[in-house]
Amino acid sequence: MNELPRTRRPGGRSARVGAQVHQAVTELIGERGYGNFTVGEVAARAGVADSSVYRRWGSLEALLTDVALTRLNARSPMPDTGSLDGDLRTYAAQVAREITGPDGPALLHLAFALSSSGQQGLLAGDDLRAERTRQLQSMLDRARDRGEPAPDAYDVLDHVLAPMYIRVLFGMVPLTPDYVDGLVDRLL
Amino acid sequence: MNELPRTRRPGGRSARVGAQVHQAVTELIGERGYGNFTVGEVAARAGVADSSVYRRWGSLEALLTDVALTRLNARSPMPDTGSLDGDLRTYAAQVAREITGPDGPALLHLAFALSSSGQQGLLAGDDLRAERTRQLQSMLDRARDRGEPAPDAYDVLDHVLAPMYIRVLFGMVPLTPDYVDGLVDRLL
Repeated sequence: MNELPRTRRPGGRSARVGAQVHQAVTELIGERGYGNFTVGEVAARAGVADSSVYRRWGSLEALLTDVALTRLNARSPMPDTGSLDGDLRTYAAQVAREITGPDGPALLHLAFALSSSGQQGLLAGDDLRAERTRQLQSMLDRARDRGEPAPDAYDVLDHVLAPMYIRVLFGMVPLTPDYVDGLVDRLL
Repeated sequence: MNELPRTRRPGGRSARVGAQVHQAVTELIGERGYGNFTVGEVAARAGVADSSVYRRWGSLEALLTDVALTRLNARSPMPDTGSLDGDLRTYAAQVAREITGPDGPALLHLAFALSSSGQQGLLAGDDLRAERTRQLQSMLDRARDRGEPAPDAYDVLDHVLAPMYIRVLFGMVPLTPDYVDGLVDRLL
């Protein structure tokens, strides 16, 4: 393994290790499913020492949580198109693209696995869900502030997000633009 | 381990081993999540030899598939109340009860894990889905035969089943009767 000289800035090396480890986790989830690999296998694929992973994340579960939170929150900022119709269509299309992309099913499985993996996982799942719900709620609040009638965030979950999640989890893909728009039409 | 005499009818022993192994799998999924256990651990908990499991199921994946197919198909026969409204309400309440029961989340995770675990799992997931869709379709066909307007089976999946599945997967339980009836009302 080619270790870089110790004089390199720690921030640069730390960020690089973080990205390599996140990528390794995403690949392993995609190949084997959630939970079917060890910290040692993550470290080997990322080209870092096991001890680097344990020092930074403490446990496999904490690492998985970090990956899920980072990927699912950072990758789709909420749209602000000026109308609820435009916002919801853009948002639904973004989510459809994200969950049908190469890492999408793995990230979905991870999010659900977190919710069912005991207290630490439940809390991580709660954080993830709370952050996304907050973002969605602010989109709906903007619509109400403009005087547009807006559905509840739970209605968006139940009738736009849930059908798309379940179809991806069942392998019923692709999600066509007509299908995704149809879910929004039905809700509005 | 108390092995029964060889003269015992093979059907009786075979059925007993099958039930013990199924129960062991369901418990292990509930405790550890899908994939976080081996054939050896299943066999130990069921009180049978590893070789019995391999001889009968061939692999852990085939065993998991068998458990999912058996449990999810056998446990909720489709209702036939004489009206679509009654059938859908009864069906939705059955599914809600099943997926929020002690084994429900484990079975849901298993069904989704199968869909993402390579070719054998995909086929098993397809079988499971095809069987349930066939049952649902025959309920909707009966309604149409009586002259009642009936939704598409996919609409039932998207707007009644998917929201319940996702709420259970996210730990957003219980599913109240009002909530479940509300999903059916909205669909009809």
